[in-house]
Amino acid sequence: MNTIKKRTYAIIGTGAVGAFYGAKLQLAGFDVHFLLHKDFAHVRDHGLRILSSEGDLVIPHVNAYADPRSMPPCDVVVVSLKTTHNKILTDVLPRVLNENGVVLMLQNGLGIEEEIAAIAGAHSVMGGLCFLRSNKIGPGLLRHTGSGYILLGDYALGGKAAGITLRCKAIAEDFSQAGISIRLTENLRVARWQKLVWNIPYNGLSVALNARTDRLMQCPSTRALIMNIMREVEAAAAACGHPIPPEFVEEMFHYTEGMEPYTTSMKIDFDEKRPMEIEAIYGNPLRAGAEAGAAMPLIEMLYQQLKYLDSLADPPSAGPEPE
Amino acid sequence: MNTIKKRTYAIIGTGAVGAFYGAKLQLAGFDVHFLLHKDFAHVRDHGLRILSSEGDLVIPHVNAYADPRSMPPCDVVVVSLKTTHNKILTDVLPRVLNENGVVLMLQNGLGIEEEIAAIAGAHSVMGGLCFLRSNKIGPGLLRHTGSGYILLGDYALGGKAAGITLRCKAIAEDFSQAGISIRLTENLRVARWQKLVWNIPYNGLSVALNARTDRLMQCPSTRALIMNIMREVEAAAAACGHPIPPEFVEEMFHYTEGMEPYTTSMKIDFDEKRPMEIEAIYGNPLRAGAEAGAAMPLIEMLYQQLKYLDSLADPPSAGPEPE
Repeated sequence: MNTIKKRTYAIIGTGAVGAFYGAKLQLAGFDVHFLLHKDFAHVRDHGLRILSSEGDLVIPHVNAYADPRSMPPCDVVVVSLKTTHNKILTDVLPRVLNENGVVLMLQNGLGIEEEIAAIAGAHSVMGGLCFLRSNKIGPGLLRHTGSGYILLGDYALGGKAAGITLRCKAIAEDFSQAGISIRLTENLRVARWQKLVWNIPYNGLSVALNARTDRLMQCPSTRALIMNIMREVEAAAAACGHPIPPEFVEEMFHYTEGMEPYTTSMKIDFDEKRPMEIEAIYGNPLRAGAEAGAAMPLIEMLYQQLKYLDSLADPPSAGPEPE
Repeated sequence: MNTIKKRTYAIIGTGAVGAFYGAKLQLAGFDVHFLLHKDFAHVRDHGLRILSSEGDLVIPHVNAYADPRSMPPCDVVVVSLKTTHNKILTDVLPRVLNENGVVLMLQNGLGIEEEIAAIAGAHSVMGGLCFLRSNKIGPGLLRHTGSGYILLGDYALGGKAAGITLRCKAIAEDFSQAGISIRLTENLRVARWQKLVWNIPYNGLSVALNARTDRLMQCPSTRALIMNIMREVEAAAAACGHPIPPEFVEEMFHYTEGMEPYTTSMKIDFDEKRPMEIEAIYGNPLRAGAEAGAAMPLIEMLYQQLKYLDSLADPPSAGPEPE
């Protein structure tokens, strides 16, 4: 990566996550290039707007692209697509990634970096977990309701702990300059399992039971079920050699108790008849757990319920939808 | 029981099951007394009508009661209430049951006879599982779409196999005279577990996934889930000392595959905002399994999901609803 000039950024997937971080980076003076699909013309003509409790952001002009072939190679390629659209990355990444660039995977679930390592090489991948409350409410328009942070970690072959690398610190520095909170993790895989402690129960149950988080936390039966599922995630992570700090499960549970009523991203996808991120959040952890000999009956049942519900939705449109 | 005069029958719960069998018994010349609640005035004035593929039945006059205190004591008290209304039986049974009479529990689930044994004595209880497709479609009006049978068994203290008793045969004879197919079982508890092999997966999943049986049988994920749940029921029954014949699970699975699209009774209850029979069909088997050391994680999860969904419904009306 170039360390003299400011790093250049590509945002692949200009939705609730990508548009937010890309906008902040651009406002901090970085050169940012946004790949869009449905909203391309609108964003090209009108830019991005973010309604935020921390102050609205208006960016009248952004570098918007409908075709990755028009984009310049960038130092950091931020992938903030839904995992269900990752198939486009095989074509996109070789076009937008600088020779010494890095792909930063801001996606939930497991097996995320592995998929990219197979395309761009293990040395070119990093990952992050976004703790952020942001929704797209129109073309180029976001509502940001909760300041959070990115838990950022480097990737090492096979998912081993990579430690805190120099490039990790450098990118963290860029994000910090842009006013984005960053925490660094030495072990990205543990961090991914930790986020699954939240995502696996709440995403799936919010869809299966048509509920926001507050309702799930009010009923003794779903409270017990959520805790049982969290414990299953914890046990699977440990079996896979990525033990989660023991107090973490209770923390996530009580954190959710204190949250405003929240509609999970998977529930929004389901309600809007978009494919849900079932394989990244359920399928891959189940396969990893099974390989390590962990029993995950509740998560498997939730996975099966979600696959059923997903099979009812209209088939996704043929083209890629990188936003 | 009186074996010279024809036996007299009380029907407690004149709904899809009770009205159907009561009507058939009355048409065969038995003296039948129907307890009603919401539909009392209508049935008193207009009787019962059953639309059936086997020929419609019209009974312009029946002995209809709104108050169990007006009913005569009967030789056989058929309880075809939803289990969620069983609380009324403490008052009703002592009034309608002849001194040497028997209570025939035509309800799904586990722990059914035990509840009545505590009120009327273990010697006064029998049970039956109804394989019947009948729905109430209006006051005093049923649609009967599938001829089935009653699997009838006597009860022995503690749920042990009671064998084929004389009174069991006698009541079977009455029902046969009325054109109702009867099969006898020596072990009512095994029969109850067998019916749970069907009820536990299909009732619960049809509610949780808002589906008829045909959709659940079309998707590979729900097919696998249904089979996993059936196996859990089978293992719990065996742990409880009531082993189900080994081929039975496959039979139920393939039977359902061949069925017309079917809306389960629990789904109808849920859609009509009536309380679901969660404790009889899930809670009691879970408690029995836990006592016997059987792991039932999937059934427990379904139970928790159903309790959540049930908690959303309007609270049930204060009064009893014996129909």
